[in-house]
Amino acid sequence: MASLPEIQAMKRALEIALPGGKAVFPNPMVGAVILDSSSNIVGEGFHEKCGGPHAEIAALSEAGAAASSGTIVVTLEPCCHYGRTGPCTDAIIMAGIRRVVIAMSDPHPNVSGKGVMQLESAGIEVETGVLFKEAELLNRVYLHYLKTSRSWVTLKMALSMAGRTAAKDGGSRWLSCEESRKQVHLMRASVQAVMTGAGTVRDDDPRLNSRSPEYTGEQPVRIVVSATGDLGNSRKIFDNPGRIIIAVPESVSADLTEFQNMYEADIWEFPADSSGYGFNLTLLLERTASEGFGEILCECGRGLATTLLRKQLVNTLSVFTTPLILGGEGLPAFDELGIDSMASAIRLENVRSSLSGTDTHLEGEVVYGTD
Amino acid sequence: MASLPEIQAMKRALEIALPGGKAVFPNPMVGAVILDSSSNIVGEGFHEKCGGPHAEIAALSEAGAAASSGTIVVTLEPCCHYGRTGPCTDAIIMAGIRRVVIAMSDPHPNVSGKGVMQLESAGIEVETGVLFKEAELLNRVYLHYLKTSRSWVTLKMALSMAGRTAAKDGGSRWLSCEESRKQVHLMRASVQAVMTGAGTVRDDDPRLNSRSPEYTGEQPVRIVVSATGDLGNSRKIFDNPGRIIIAVPESVSADLTEFQNMYEADIWEFPADSSGYGFNLTLLLERTASEGFGEILCECGRGLATTLLRKQLVNTLSVFTTPLILGGEGLPAFDELGIDSMASAIRLENVRSSLSGTDTHLEGEVVYGTD
Repeated sequence: MASLPEIQAMKRALEIALPGGKAVFPNPMVGAVILDSSSNIVGEGFHEKCGGPHAEIAALSEAGAAASSGTIVVTLEPCCHYGRTGPCTDAIIMAGIRRVVIAMSDPHPNVSGKGVMQLESAGIEVETGVLFKEAELLNRVYLHYLKTSRSWVTLKMALSMAGRTAAKDGGSRWLSCEESRKQVHLMRASVQAVMTGAGTVRDDDPRLNSRSPEYTGEQPVRIVVSATGDLGNSRKIFDNPGRIIIAVPESVSADLTEFQNMYEADIWEFPADSSGYGFNLTLLLERTASEGFGEILCECGRGLATTLLRKQLVNTLSVFTTPLILGGEGLPAFDELGIDSMASAIRLENVRSSLSGTDTHLEGEVVYGTD
Repeated sequence: MASLPEIQAMKRALEIALPGGKAVFPNPMVGAVILDSSSNIVGEGFHEKCGGPHAEIAALSEAGAAASSGTIVVTLEPCCHYGRTGPCTDAIIMAGIRRVVIAMSDPHPNVSGKGVMQLESAGIEVETGVLFKEAELLNRVYLHYLKTSRSWVTLKMALSMAGRTAAKDGGSRWLSCEESRKQVHLMRASVQAVMTGAGTVRDDDPRLNSRSPEYTGEQPVRIVVSATGDLGNSRKIFDNPGRIIIAVPESVSADLTEFQNMYEADIWEFPADSSGYGFNLTLLLERTASEGFGEILCECGRGLATTLLRKQLVNTLSVFTTPLILGGEGLPAFDELGIDSMASAIRLENVRSSLSGTDTHLEGEVVYGTD
């Protein structure tokens, strides 16, 4: 069983992994902490970006000779293969580590228990499953990608208290408080891409960039999904710098050359079908993942939100609720989702509820009903 | 200007007033704190129940001789008339108080500035308006009653994240977490009456009593509003002890003698009209107020909730939101409310947002749109 200092070190490792953020994809975020034989922390490290040193190497390097006879506490099973960097298991063995505490095994086919086996064969004691749930949450994007080859979709919505996205006349300014809007700019900064539907572009003319004063990094790629190619006359999304992708069914009637020529937009064409949005959105999310977009923040209207939920493509739901009422005539958040009873409700797990100015913010991972 | 110790004493006075709760109606909740000339607290008191001593008298009695040359800090203008008890202004003057700090003037026609005038004529310095907003919130039920002769209505709802009250098949068990359900039992204990519609009685068969283990006081009166008198076969509300009122239009077709004879229910009849629920709900709320029900907790379905909001009879809205999605096919919280745009949205003020287990809880006083 893991000791109290080891559990505390695992908490710390989970925490220091976080700054890796979107830069590590398609790798996982990893944090590592080295304890000496008296359980003092002698080294820490995290995986900063894809291609950079692994967390274990960074931590061992900080610990130096102090790692000898110590314990390494790491959020994911150490790798045992030559990838962009050498195998971490070798480095751990070489450093004279006696015990390895791991939050979760790495399901990557190149690792998947082989890392643990190598360590054990070298006479090192290995314990796994310490703060497993927390590690799973930390690496949800990585784990999802390994399993599905798709990007993780976070669907963000701003709703009235009774779940309306806009008043009867379509007006929705401002349906969230200033603090919530700030939060959304931070959310945009934390993902590789922001996605919306053409209807939202036509109606709301959003910019969809991160205007967070604290954020100076690269802007998220913006993806506009359209069944028809009709983007109307809204151009704010194009007038703001950054890569734009327009995803459409093959041979849409609308002329997209303006967007290609004037705004250098990438046009992504998918085989037309009738599965909800003119083409199969699963294909889009496979392509976005292969382009390196681990997580996509979707800020869209009812049509795209409904399709994504019906196709079980939403992974995190993030709802800001503002204290006002728009009545039954307000625009609903979703169309029919095929939920007949409470048993088939879409539920959230790992629920994070927080206060955001005068709004409340509920967020969690989506569990689709089984009815 | 009020000194810092006086402002702190007013916060304390607001706090100690609260246990008065529903027992003071139709009086206001009042708290009073006596400071001696060195700003030490030498006496405290609150109005415990209608007919009992006023807060000022309780505080002066605790302070005794120490009140002389001191300051009384009180949440409402002291009374100057003989009611169930003698005038507080006389007691304050007699005690040798030099300064009176008041949060808000009492709009009661028997007081309404006359209390302040009497104190001033006795050479006492009076300051009013200290923590006015807080005092107004504390006494919302009293102030509303003075102005409208009606009970204060708190509409409580349990909603999905996108504002649905039940799944497509009507199921709603459990749409709130255990902690929220506990909160609701405490809310029921804090009011004189709980109200619902006949539809909810027929469909959900609720008991509507407070099953809070901490609560040993009197159960709230339960009021069932029905346009037709049809209460179906649900009997849980009747099988649980406590007074029950059935409010119906005059000469409803249904036979209510069973409820009168077997369950000793009071049948309240109102002139039939077409204003939304078979009769004018304003008349009902005037009658409930005259029976001593200061605040009514309304736990009802879409029909009654919509009518109450349309008639601007809801005063506090209290929404528990649970992290699940029921889709556009779920039952909406309200029918049309006559809100065309964001400008005419129903807004909340004094917003209290809190976390309640895995739910969020948004509550505030209703401000009707002006569009």
